[in-house]
Amino acid sequence: MKFVSYRSGTEARLAVLDGDTVVDLNRLVPEVPSDARKALQSGIDLPAAARRALELAGPADRQPLAGVALAPVVPEPGKTVCLGLNYYDHAAESGRDKPVYPWFFLRSTTSLLAHGEAAERPRVSEKLDYEAELAVVIGKRGRHITKEDALDYVFGYAAFNDISVRDYQKRTPQWTIGKNFDRTGAFGPVLVTADELPPGGAGLRIQSRLNGEVMQDANTRDMIWDVAETIALLSECVTLEAGDVIAMGTPAGVGQSRVPPVWMKDGDTIEVEIEGVGLLVNTIRDEVQEKAQA
Amino acid sequence: MKFVSYRSGTEARLAVLDGDTVVDLNRLVPEVPSDARKALQSGIDLPAAARRALELAGPADRQPLAGVALAPVVPEPGKTVCLGLNYYDHAAESGRDKPVYPWFFLRSTTSLLAHGEAAERPRVSEKLDYEAELAVVIGKRGRHITKEDALDYVFGYAAFNDISVRDYQKRTPQWTIGKNFDRTGAFGPVLVTADELPPGGAGLRIQSRLNGEVMQDANTRDMIWDVAETIALLSECVTLEAGDVIAMGTPAGVGQSRVPPVWMKDGDTIEVEIEGVGLLVNTIRDEVQEKAQA
Repeated sequence: MKFVSYRSGTEARLAVLDGDTVVDLNRLVPEVPSDARKALQSGIDLPAAARRALELAGPADRQPLAGVALAPVVPEPGKTVCLGLNYYDHAAESGRDKPVYPWFFLRSTTSLLAHGEAAERPRVSEKLDYEAELAVVIGKRGRHITKEDALDYVFGYAAFNDISVRDYQKRTPQWTIGKNFDRTGAFGPVLVTADELPPGGAGLRIQSRLNGEVMQDANTRDMIWDVAETIALLSECVTLEAGDVIAMGTPAGVGQSRVPPVWMKDGDTIEVEIEGVGLLVNTIRDEVQEKAQA
Repeated sequence: MKFVSYRSGTEARLAVLDGDTVVDLNRLVPEVPSDARKALQSGIDLPAAARRALELAGPADRQPLAGVALAPVVPEPGKTVCLGLNYYDHAAESGRDKPVYPWFFLRSTTSLLAHGEAAERPRVSEKLDYEAELAVVIGKRGRHITKEDALDYVFGYAAFNDISVRDYQKRTPQWTIGKNFDRTGAFGPVLVTADELPPGGAGLRIQSRLNGEVMQDANTRDMIWDVAETIALLSECVTLEAGDVIAMGTPAGVGQSRVPPVWMKDGDTIEVEIEGVGLLVNTIRDEVQEKAQA
């Protein structure tokens, strides 16, 4: 089952994907909250609700996917935890040893953007870089989750582009600010339920392509900490809640590690594709002066 | 004007403080959302609404402050940005040079707790440390805010205890995980509007006391980046929204820098007091085994 969030006026709504058609879940099954995080927290069996919506859907309940303005698949996660250096080859290209513990940092909601939206190169930097990542969406609340139970807490997976402003990321040892610029965390287009993928989303080809050229080409099995281990380690420290997101880190091939470095610029198209999960496409747009004081 | 959030069943409600009495703002002025973040985002003039509530309040609308279960003053901030090393003396005691840019990191909502609640020493660590901080609550949305305009974006101030799990904070260069354990970010008891304090909350005595003994004793004027500079630097990168929080960093005297180090343990009482802002008191409680899988 595949879900999308899309924008309807100022709010986001939750829909089921049926081929290239979006079926309005909230209208057909009104007890499902329109916000994906709230829907996940409601305890409603969302795949069952989606099946019901697909049965009930008449032509008026369907829209072409190409005709809707998507939102990030979870528009307002409770928290978005990111892992740095979670592939050996990327740690190596970054001049780092194999880490002994995940390099966790957080992304705020104001940094997220949807499939099809323009990612923003900020006025203050020219060092805008892509990072193809597998995102995990948590489906139920837990703390001290064992590695053995961890995958029961996963609702599904989506593609993520952890776009980074490298000079700000490196201004201090804390990477956070370089990972939180507005409109840099691309997340979508679809949320694929875990049952459609191999356990832990492992063994999937993951690529990024800049203007059609392959920049990263790896496999999710090469993560240092896999999804189950990451959930176990994180939940040793924090309560994971339904609607939380974990971005699992990026493989080698990022722009900063190339000779000469490759930075994204206005008009570029960046794609992240994960086998069985989806194709996330964003153009790059320079931040415009008018946005000041927005 | 002083506001508090308190728990009523599973939801938080917003109230005005009148001496030692809490006046229910949501019941008396129903257009004010009960969640502090939503109330700040609503565009309603909250001090005016509070004055109206105080005029309308009969005895049934008042409760003793001591009788309510407080929530964090903003129970669910859009984001909580923290600054590391923002006082020279604390940077020095941590063996760091004067930083050239703020060490920003983020706290998630699951880490927050209220005045009067027990802060939690996690099972996995004995290195629990206090950090007295001034918290800034943003009152309106902005990006690229100049230092000159910055204080117009501040709704008010509160006391914050950025309780840190030091071994996890230091496991990798990213401090985030050690700053995000459940029930470690104490925030309250009250939100004091900016007009009641000196501009930028500067010139206020800030203390922490562990079991009555003064551990930190400094002045908010000694920050490296003051509130206005911090808002300008942050909003160069991210949109600040009403209900966002900035925790301004801690002065010298933390437990990890003492010889021998001082760690908080079950039964301890930790207080943060900021002149004109408030007294934030929390006890420490060991995480109990029963909380697993909560």
